[in-house]
Amino acid sequence: MPHSPLLAPLRDQYAALRSGKLRALELAEAACEAYRIREQQDNAYLTWQGETACAIARATDAVIAQGGDTGALMGMTVSIKDIYAVPGLPTYAGSSQRLPASWERPGPVVSALLAQLPSVMGKTHSVEFAFGGLGTNAHWGAPRNPWDSQAHRTPGGSSSGAGVSLVGGTASLALGTDTAGSIRIPASMTGVAGLKTTAGRWSTAQIVPLSTTLDTPGLLARRVDDLAFAFDALDGRLSPRPARVPGTPDLADMTFGVPERFFWDDCSPGIAEAVQQAIRQLEAAGARVVGIELPNTDDAYELFQKGGVAAPELAAFLNTELPHMIAGLDPNVADRIRAADDIPAWEYVRRRTVLDRLHGDAVARMNEVDAVLTPTVAITPPTLESLVPEGAYAKANMKALRNTVMANFMGLCGLTLPVGLDAAGMPVGLQILAGPWQDARLLAIGQAIEAKLGSGVDILGDPPAFSPR
Amino acid sequence: MPHSPLLAPLRDQYAALRSGKLRALELAEAACEAYRIREQQDNAYLTWQGETACAIARATDAVIAQGGDTGALMGMTVSIKDIYAVPGLPTYAGSSQRLPASWERPGPVVSALLAQLPSVMGKTHSVEFAFGGLGTNAHWGAPRNPWDSQAHRTPGGSSSGAGVSLVGGTASLALGTDTAGSIRIPASMTGVAGLKTTAGRWSTAQIVPLSTTLDTPGLLARRVDDLAFAFDALDGRLSPRPARVPGTPDLADMTFGVPERFFWDDCSPGIAEAVQQAIRQLEAAGARVVGIELPNTDDAYELFQKGGVAAPELAAFLNTELPHMIAGLDPNVADRIRAADDIPAWEYVRRRTVLDRLHGDAVARMNEVDAVLTPTVAITPPTLESLVPEGAYAKANMKALRNTVMANFMGLCGLTLPVGLDAAGMPVGLQILAGPWQDARLLAIGQAIEAKLGSGVDILGDPPAFSPR
Repeated sequence: MPHSPLLAPLRDQYAALRSGKLRALELAEAACEAYRIREQQDNAYLTWQGETACAIARATDAVIAQGGDTGALMGMTVSIKDIYAVPGLPTYAGSSQRLPASWERPGPVVSALLAQLPSVMGKTHSVEFAFGGLGTNAHWGAPRNPWDSQAHRTPGGSSSGAGVSLVGGTASLALGTDTAGSIRIPASMTGVAGLKTTAGRWSTAQIVPLSTTLDTPGLLARRVDDLAFAFDALDGRLSPRPARVPGTPDLADMTFGVPERFFWDDCSPGIAEAVQQAIRQLEAAGARVVGIELPNTDDAYELFQKGGVAAPELAAFLNTELPHMIAGLDPNVADRIRAADDIPAWEYVRRRTVLDRLHGDAVARMNEVDAVLTPTVAITPPTLESLVPEGAYAKANMKALRNTVMANFMGLCGLTLPVGLDAAGMPVGLQILAGPWQDARLLAIGQAIEAKLGSGVDILGDPPAFSPR
Repeated sequence: MPHSPLLAPLRDQYAALRSGKLRALELAEAACEAYRIREQQDNAYLTWQGETACAIARATDAVIAQGGDTGALMGMTVSIKDIYAVPGLPTYAGSSQRLPASWERPGPVVSALLAQLPSVMGKTHSVEFAFGGLGTNAHWGAPRNPWDSQAHRTPGGSSSGAGVSLVGGTASLALGTDTAGSIRIPASMTGVAGLKTTAGRWSTAQIVPLSTTLDTPGLLARRVDDLAFAFDALDGRLSPRPARVPGTPDLADMTFGVPERFFWDDCSPGIAEAVQQAIRQLEAAGARVVGIELPNTDDAYELFQKGGVAAPELAAFLNTELPHMIAGLDPNVADRIRAADDIPAWEYVRRRTVLDRLHGDAVARMNEVDAVLTPTVAITPPTLESLVPEGAYAKANMKALRNTVMANFMGLCGLTLPVGLDAAGMPVGLQILAGPWQDARLLAIGQAIEAKLGSGVDILGDPPAFSPR
């Protein structure tokens, strides 16, 4: 077991907690110690509740001592993105103001988590109303990407504190949400694994909405195997069609589709190379790799650049529920909300119809392969300085989201895992996409790939400025 | 059996066709004879295919002679609203131009019907793109309401020819659609029964869309019992949760909710009286009648008056699929399409959210009773002349739709059956509403009510200018 017990695989923590070799309090205290050392640099958390978490961990240990078992996530350290309502913790959704108290009443995902008695360490930063892929925030600052000890690079967003909380050693599991890439981008940029679930699988109730059409809850963790473990702990309580992650398939039985264009265009130096290298390793292990084009990617990207459906859907929420907050929005969010005023209702209806067609066409194509492999993010995490010039933020944001939004627009589920470092020394993610409701099988495929390539912990080593593992 | 065999109950036709006492050709020929006598006055049909129907009926009789049975609707005469795609018949959707040939490929409802070998007599008139409740049409004229031999009164819409085809004796069953009342209003105004199914129960594919959110296919017939018979013939082939109409319940076991306001406001003379009289008869038969208020009716009606979701949804369809047809729209349709240009996307999203809340609140309230009873339409069918003054159409149209649109906005299913004549001598309908997916039970309740009050055939007698039954 590594130095900090919460860096160990969730399966090992699970066994150690039950055999008496590990106490929940040790995990929570390790998180508190990491927070003490790291948080000033990392800025991962909006709200930290280390003491409360330790108190809960003590109670959990008492439960365990009595032979109690409240679920697979019992005693584990978890961080929660600041757009989930969580009892006892304020919700800002990345904005400058605390939202009404109704946003502190838990929805199904948080309830399914809390019922297992994890130690919730705090709420991690989010881009304001989750509307951005880089992780910046005019009100609270951007969490710092731990992989650059010199420049302040973005951590990816909108679940901007989620990946940083994992790398920083303050949690073993992070709840995020993904509307266009908001789990996969921060996971890729911080060198951890992330799961975007199929829309409709896990309820978005009591998660501050960005897009009622596309929002999905999901998970970030150090390993795909950890994601699979946590998925199994939650899906049976949440999904209308619950599934368990099946046995890890043999790579020699897999056919992977690799698009030949779009996803590879204009990648920052070293990104395409790292992903191609990973794909070659899978091929060498017996996987069949075939060319595949996801249909209508150009149309989908054009629709996304026009604001898609999220911009008018967020505008509807803000105009209806929080009109007093519009004036104070982060300028990078406000610009896109304002632009949505010029979209007529019928154009929104048309966009929904386009999404329906994108779904249908993509599902048919996805049936030809076991999964599709692409780079998760095309660009290296930009420095904050590089985003200052007029127009720079909008351009980088679009490009960061380009490869991930396809899964949202096409109704797929998706996974990312780290496969190397780019020319700037920043983590590179491999995106694995599968058809709707294939989440459990996607995780099994991801486990097979991780078993071959090694987990991020093995591949990337420790980030430069921090070496607790 | 009455003079024209197709006026008989569908159950009797079913038995007579199978016992050899009735031939499909007799039914089709009776329809042709009625068409010859009536159509010049009625103007029920956009397209008539009497000869084709007789040829099909002959083939059907040959099938029956061989002991074949293709389903409960085999050999029966049916009219289809002109917004359903039907093989071999042009689709205009009430517009001035034939739509592209793809709109002649049948969808699930028409396929489920045609597979049973009915005799489809033709396609009945519709308000242009089904966007109006009175039944007027600037391109094809309004079908004439058969219950006034002097003035040309509206037949109700948008399924404007559907009720007229039944009263005129050219069909035993009519397919219509209902987005805000487009089945129940023409049924009520022409003195027949009509069923609006729960949204999502029967596919709207290959039905020219007015509102992708609210459109529902449904049926009109002379009796609730005919509706129940036809529902049982179709639902098993169409619904994701198929049901059969259960046994007729005892009225003494029923609790009916009767709203005390909104639905009764400003009714034309004799309408409220006829419906109240019917409710008293049900109470005398042992039914429990309680006051009930459907929640948010005023908010819902205000939303409807602003164009609801149908105006932008129809605009999206026309702008995307048929942009060349916008310039030539019926002015009463064009006005409301143009107004939709000023609705921003976020406002449409807000309206969808309001509909979701209306659904939820109404479903909870509906659980308190077996069904809710109201007048189907608040106004006597207006004369065409009365609609000419500026603003008169818009006002009458809103009022005609007021009581029915509540079911669409609240996600309910609904039924209408005739209960008497108003002070102008025009038919009055009783609307029966039930919660979502309660369609089969709603029909059983309607049968119980019809058994007590008598069917329209018994109550209303024959329309003044026409006496074949």
